[in-house]
Amino acid sequence: MKIDLNCDMGESFGNYKIGNDEEMLQVITSANIACGFHAGDPNVMCHTVQMAKANGVAIGAHPGFPDLEGFGRRTMICTDEEIKNYIRYQVGALREFCTFAGVELQHVKPHGNMYTMAQEDDDLARSILEVIATLGKNVITFAEYNSAISNMAVKMGVPVAIEGFGDRTYAANAHYIQVRKGPDKEHQVGLIERDVRLVKEKKIVAVTGEDIDLPVQTICIHGDTIGAVDLMRDLRKALEAEGVEITAAKNIVL
Amino acid sequence: MKIDLNCDMGESFGNYKIGNDEEMLQVITSANIACGFHAGDPNVMCHTVQMAKANGVAIGAHPGFPDLEGFGRRTMICTDEEIKNYIRYQVGALREFCTFAGVELQHVKPHGNMYTMAQEDDDLARSILEVIATLGKNVITFAEYNSAISNMAVKMGVPVAIEGFGDRTYAANAHYIQVRKGPDKEHQVGLIERDVRLVKEKKIVAVTGEDIDLPVQTICIHGDTIGAVDLMRDLRKALEAEGVEITAAKNIVL
Amino acid sequence: MKIDLNCDMGESFGNYKIGNDEEMLQVITSANIACGFHAGDPNVMCHTVQMAKANGVAIGAHPGFPDLEGFGRRTMICTDEEIKNYIRYQVGALREFCTFAGVELQHVKPHGNMYTMAQEDDDLARSILEVIATLGKNVITFAEYNSAISNMAVKMGVPVAIEGFGDRTYAANAHYIQVRKGPDKEHQVGLIERDVRLVKEKKIVAVTGEDIDLPVQTICIHGDTIGAVDLMRDLRKALEAEGVEITAAKNIVL
Amino acid sequence: MKIDLNCDMGESFGNYKIGNDEEMLQVITSANIACGFHAGDPNVMCHTVQMAKANGVAIGAHPGFPDLEGFGRRTMICTDEEIKNYIRYQVGALREFCTFAGVELQHVKPHGNMYTMAQEDDDLARSILEVIATLGKNVITFAEYNSAISNMAVKMGVPVAIEGFGDRTYAANAHYIQVRKGPDKEHQVGLIERDVRLVKEKKIVAVTGEDIDLPVQTICIHGDTIGAVDLMRDLRKALEAEGVEITAAKNIVL
Repeated sequence: MKIDLNCDMGESFGNYKIGNDEEMLQVITSANIACGFHAGDPNVMCHTVQMAKANGVAIGAHPGFPDLEGFGRRTMICTDEEIKNYIRYQVGALREFCTFAGVELQHVKPHGNMYTMAQEDDDLARSILEVIATLGKNVITFAEYNSAISNMAVKMGVPVAIEGFGDRTYAANAHYIQVRKGPDKEHQVGLIERDVRLVKEKKIVAVTGEDIDLPVQTICIHGDTIGAVDLMRDLRKALEAEGVEITAAKNIVL
Repeated sequence: MKIDLNCDMGESFGNYKIGNDEEMLQVITSANIACGFHAGDPNVMCHTVQMAKANGVAIGAHPGFPDLEGFGRRTMICTDEEIKNYIRYQVGALREFCTFAGVELQHVKPHGNMYTMAQEDDDLARSILEVIATLGKNVITFAEYNSAISNMAVKMGVPVAIEGFGDRTYAANAHYIQVRKGPDKEHQVGLIERDVRLVKEKKIVAVTGEDIDLPVQTICIHGDTIGAVDLMRDLRKALEAEGVEITAAKNIVL
Repeated sequence: MKIDLNCDMGESFGNYKIGNDEEMLQVITSANIACGFHAGDPNVMCHTVQMAKANGVAIGAHPGFPDLEGFGRRTMICTDEEIKNYIRYQVGALREFCTFAGVELQHVKPHGNMYTMAQEDDDLARSILEVIATLGKNVITFAEYNSAISNMAVKMGVPVAIEGFGDRTYAANAHYIQVRKGPDKEHQVGLIERDVRLVKEKKIVAVTGEDIDLPVQTICIHGDTIGAVDLMRDLRKALEAEGVEITAAKNIVL
Repeated sequence: MKIDLNCDMGESFGNYKIGNDEEMLQVITSANIACGFHAGDPNVMCHTVQMAKANGVAIGAHPGFPDLEGFGRRTMICTDEEIKNYIRYQVGALREFCTFAGVELQHVKPHGNMYTMAQEDDDLARSILEVIATLGKNVITFAEYNSAISNMAVKMGVPVAIEGFGDRTYAANAHYIQVRKGPDKEHQVGLIERDVRLVKEKKIVAVTGEDIDLPVQTICIHGDTIGAVDLMRDLRKALEAEGVEITAAKNIVL
């Protein structure tokens, strides 16, 4: 039994610092690195790629809408051409830092509202997948279960890693419930147990009480959840104690 | 006898259109494509790379300072790390569009004031060349003769194409004289003859009267010079009439 | 009988030039000046305000979404707080140039998709009007007839000038039909007559054939419509020939 | 004996948070509020102005170069026209939020490298002062002693408040010594005593040992200095214990 642990990384910008990337990179196996549109800048990208490599963490591009002020979390309606070129541009920029560091790009995970919109929007999902399909046959898309984008990826033959959120609750349709902030310490009680069960049994209890299927291959904990690094470390330890192998998505999906 | 003809391309941005790229690409052999910092956007970049390929024109990255409002023409003092990462980011973004189009990146030509500052500033020249040196052993730097950057490129073993400006006058030190606008029609009289001599004899008369050496391998005409496409076409015809082969820089320098 | 003639102005940005503001300002009575978010920059704003003043043209702020690359024409979902602060920021910046020039701000016309979305979206319309209401009791909102925003302005007691588009066709609900480009020369036949009737009778024939009410107080011709200045000049002459007084919106609405 | 205490405020941007404005505003008498170019955004500006008003703190605009990524700390060479319009634009935007809050703009303090460059550069100093001079006759410029800008302000009759940095050391020419980071806890020993003497005697010992004149009217402590709020609070208490009145610059300079 294997699982990938991922986190969004490299979201600092110029003088503005976000996240605890240095510590988080010691715990995870896949890093989603911001590419300068919704967060990140060229210096941060270079540094984050080097740190990921030093920690043996697989690297993914985390492209977003061109909206630094909104952190890519606002709805922007873009054309198919715009979406494709925005993703290609951001992936290319990140990939150049990967090439410089001597590592391969493992995956692409759309950021923020681009990720969320692609759960339901077939046209957006298709745009995203059509560009990822041209980036290399082994480039994996991170996506939610039972979503427009993951279902379409399967149809198109684009490698996909089904992602679960270790710090979010779930609706009965297996989609995570969007909130701006992760749970505080008090509401993290029982989270590790829930997540271990999710990884081992591929099942989770929805907020409406149903026990639903969620065949996760990678687990994300948001860097801005309180105690994110501790949570991820505890999850990793608990999974390892159960004999689960923690390994990058490419070792699970490809 | 061979010469490369180059022009800055892909400088439109969103709703803003600049240049006559479609026609210019029918005349030149190397295109310097803006990468989204001082000009250009992902859609323009994709389209320009595709057009260049369709015309058999070799592609170069044209990275600039992150200053769209100043079009990269203002002095910005950046650190060595910033310069390197800004160039790597921009080249990477463009290279992804090249990979998608199935073409190789031929060269890098710093844009605007980054180009001009690197004529005199050894530290900036070194930063630029150290990043270009990691982009691939055949990636050519376009630079002025007798400049900090071209002299250092030779020392470092980075391939360099010496560039002459077909629509600018020259100082006695073989540096072009910076003006914001190229010559109007009236002042273009005799320009073609001057440029043909420059290509054939590698000599040009400076504004102070000296006949100086200028061993050019590529000639640039600015896209915003009045009648730029006609000027480039006339130059090409005149050169061909003299038996000069018009070919991309890689066929001259490498 | 009076009418205001307006046009979007000051949409150039840095090295990028759009529109023929100098000539258009000789024909119109109200200028909607971009404020640096979707178009325009501080230098362009200062210059445009000065030119408007020199031509006796009333000045309005033309705030848009913070999306230069999309020219404010893309849907962006912003919060009520964001909309209000974006508009206040942009109006404030423009108003400082007005104060410097010694002229008053006459109106606010939301730009692009912010304008269009406020036709139907009550929440957005309310956000826009609540901020305009605090800008001064005589600051006029330009808005479409029979729209969420014009209807709400009436209810709220915010002065509104009903706008008609002299270069667009109309649906039966009195909303203009959005197209990216205005009519070419061929399709401009009969336009002046249609617009003169619109001004005099407040009626226009919808694309579906109905003769509908459209009680316009200001007529806009888009600066990027082919021959925009000629069209506006011809319209002005035709209206004057019919005895219509061409005057700024404040002389009609307040 | 009176002194103003000031701090840079409102430097957060979108999802990025900087500074402890809420607490600092309880201690200072003048706030320099970022205006969206090097830091700050419209929502942050609105909120910061409201908080400053609630705390009875006088408000100043803190305009910077258009360089969010460099936080306005990089050298950018702008024309006289650009500097003037950049400042007017930023001040106007902030002033609109002041008007909305029902407070007056007290001062303008150029940010970062614009501040530093204006110490030595007469042309830049003149550009800055010529625009401030048009903003209202009581708008105060914050500037260093013995600098190009403070000397020129006196000549031009623009009200100026001489600023001292409570967390920086000084050269013999009475200019503060630029460092990126303020002193850590260890190096803050004796700082309060030094600053109290500075306020009371208008004298400070330079790093080279001379006891020099520094006729300060406002003291700044940088928000990113370790323990900035505590330092400012301790300074305030120590000054009050010595009978110094802590009051906004307008009560000292005008």
